[in-house]
Amino acid sequence: MLSVADAQAIVLQHARPLPAEITPLSPAALGLVLAEDVSCDLDMPPYDKSLMDGYAVRSADLPTGEGELSVVEEITAGHMPVRTLNSGEAASIMTGAPLPAGADAVVMKERTESVGATRVRIADRPPRPGQNVLSRGREMRHGEVVLPAGAVLRPQDLGLLATVGRTAARLHPTPEIAVLPTGDEIVEPATRPGLGQIRNSNGPMLAAQVARAGGRPKLLGIARDRLESLRPPIAEGLRSPLMLLSGGVSAGKLDLVPGVLQELGVTPYFHKVEMKPGKPVFFGARGSTLVFGLPGNPVSSLVCFELFVRPALRRLRGQADAGPRLVQAALGEDFAYSTDRPTYHPAFLERCETGWWVRPTPWFGSSDLRGLLPANAFVVFPAGDRHHRAGEVFSVLRVDSDDVI
Amino acid sequence: MLSVADAQAIVLQHARPLPAEITPLSPAALGLVLAEDVSCDLDMPPYDKSLMDGYAVRSADLPTGEGELSVVEEITAGHMPVRTLNSGEAASIMTGAPLPAGADAVVMKERTESVGATRVRIADRPPRPGQNVLSRGREMRHGEVVLPAGAVLRPQDLGLLATVGRTAARLHPTPEIAVLPTGDEIVEPATRPGLGQIRNSNGPMLAAQVARAGGRPKLLGIARDRLESLRPPIAEGLRSPLMLLSGGVSAGKLDLVPGVLQELGVTPYFHKVEMKPGKPVFFGARGSTLVFGLPGNPVSSLVCFELFVRPALRRLRGQADAGPRLVQAALGEDFAYSTDRPTYHPAFLERCETGWWVRPTPWFGSSDLRGLLPANAFVVFPAGDRHHRAGEVFSVLRVDSDDVI
Repeated sequence: MLSVADAQAIVLQHARPLPAEITPLSPAALGLVLAEDVSCDLDMPPYDKSLMDGYAVRSADLPTGEGELSVVEEITAGHMPVRTLNSGEAASIMTGAPLPAGADAVVMKERTESVGATRVRIADRPPRPGQNVLSRGREMRHGEVVLPAGAVLRPQDLGLLATVGRTAARLHPTPEIAVLPTGDEIVEPATRPGLGQIRNSNGPMLAAQVARAGGRPKLLGIARDRLESLRPPIAEGLRSPLMLLSGGVSAGKLDLVPGVLQELGVTPYFHKVEMKPGKPVFFGARGSTLVFGLPGNPVSSLVCFELFVRPALRRLRGQADAGPRLVQAALGEDFAYSTDRPTYHPAFLERCETGWWVRPTPWFGSSDLRGLLPANAFVVFPAGDRHHRAGEVFSVLRVDSDDVI
Repeated sequence: MLSVADAQAIVLQHARPLPAEITPLSPAALGLVLAEDVSCDLDMPPYDKSLMDGYAVRSADLPTGEGELSVVEEITAGHMPVRTLNSGEAASIMTGAPLPAGADAVVMKERTESVGATRVRIADRPPRPGQNVLSRGREMRHGEVVLPAGAVLRPQDLGLLATVGRTAARLHPTPEIAVLPTGDEIVEPATRPGLGQIRNSNGPMLAAQVARAGGRPKLLGIARDRLESLRPPIAEGLRSPLMLLSGGVSAGKLDLVPGVLQELGVTPYFHKVEMKPGKPVFFGARGSTLVFGLPGNPVSSLVCFELFVRPALRRLRGQADAGPRLVQAALGEDFAYSTDRPTYHPAFLERCETGWWVRPTPWFGSSDLRGLLPANAFVVFPAGDRHHRAGEVFSVLRVDSDDVI
């Protein structure tokens, strides 16, 4: 049977970034991926700038750091100096103001003393050329790339784009993700389930997973286990770049979804993965549209989303590092576990002095959503009937964070 | 001068969770904080449930694990059994189907063999009572709290709320945060700045910081350094639960903001904090409305937001752990640094074998937004002219993640 890693590789082979669009740089652009190199349209700072309140001087005038100079101008922020400093001259200058021609250093005010209205006495260490000065273009230079294609936009990046005059940029758009739970046994949450019925928890959960992963969920209602109920919403969902179905993909006689997908032109790439929970997971594509059939049990659905759909969504969004986010963590306590397939078991992951430790949390299987309450991750146990020892290292899938650190 | 920690404590003393509201559990509820204990309206599973395809048996009938039993019923998922098992009887059962009365265990199909149409031969280890059965209410019990007040809603929590029949819940709402950059020197990003002018990078950056921190930004344009330009948008901003101003709060003669705030009834709590960048940072309140005056330089503004506004926003959102997110990290390389106040220096934080390490990134001061490009954090250097050694441990403020691990 296909391994999780091989299945993930197949998914990423078929996922392509959505075509970039010119997008206004509103707060809605936060987290989107830049699809162009953005360069600077001016020098920053635009002139040699004083970093202190004090006096602009010619360093050659003060070889010992002490001396008296003639003050020829007062330069405030937002005004260009009009005088060039000659030998023996200084200009009073404010933080952020432009240096006058001829000056090459600033002496801070605290090291100076006014002598009448037009002279200043300086007692400091010998000034270095460039002291307390930020030279023109030091932060960024006209024409230089300040933010490269591939950047995932953070608030500071949006600030930087505004600084270089951008109000819009080429960004990969937010992918629309169609969500369709299927099954005769599903009732809406407001309904009290009868015998053999379960409430639709996958619809709201998958929609929220999509939103957390940077997609825009499009809920298509609930489809029943009949061809005429499945066809119209599946056809509609295939107009989105990615469609999620849940339920209807295991091998039972009522599992009609793969047939409808093939009828509508979807090429299947896999239908089973060697894992627990969630062996029956379908992946296919029609053109550039990706289709996932997730198992109906809610924990299976959640895990399969994180393992297979989230990397695809990252790739659609244009993220370079689309692959799974696994960390290696030491088991916090002995844990006996028996399973016939590699199993993603709910767990609590925590930082410790020497890295990560992980503790499996109580869990009653793929329908037990409540068991996820104290969990923030899934620890991967190998197949077999084993007694794992505290300190043994396992791969762990983080689900409550997309951070790589 | 007030320390950062003391200033943060003052902010949190004045910040209160926004009153909870009944809110639909759409994907927009993701990340909001639950303001009620939610309990379960049914038992899950609703009956003793088989975890395997196989045969429901009375364990007392199979003391050695071997025997032949009469098959009295076939129980499929979604149908209640009609017969009670008597001694010597078994029922064929599907995964997920309810156990018949009298049965206390399930033998998996692989350990059985049909004998004609109505009998089954079993060859297994002696069945334990409860074997392969998930008993009624084991996942959750009618009336039991399944999600407590204070939970920050994740996708799996929204799934759980749907499972217990909730389509709405009492949640603390998304706080609306008013954003008002001030200053005669500010021009819109589409404009080419003239001498002494800078583009409005703080408006877009602060709005995105608000969105990232779970608030809803409300941009109020740009106010000029005149009373008549400041008063109307400040009065409007004070109708939001939190208002952010940038610029206009240092001690210069044009810094009119604190005066206007006091005139409009805002009580000032602090106006200076011992830190760099960003010493002049104002905090006050009018009733339950909080007001922050952030410094105009973009990096100062960003750091002050993360240190003071973000904890306030967490508290408004109802988060219990509102305080700052500091990690301790070892310096990755020697670093000489001279500063007269505790300084938040841009840095790259990374996980290593033994915890975190941090490396300061090149930076030209509080106007240098571009210097933040390779940074994901700020390392806190103490005042003094010091040569810090690789391996020394410093506090680090993470800015690109709200994770505590």
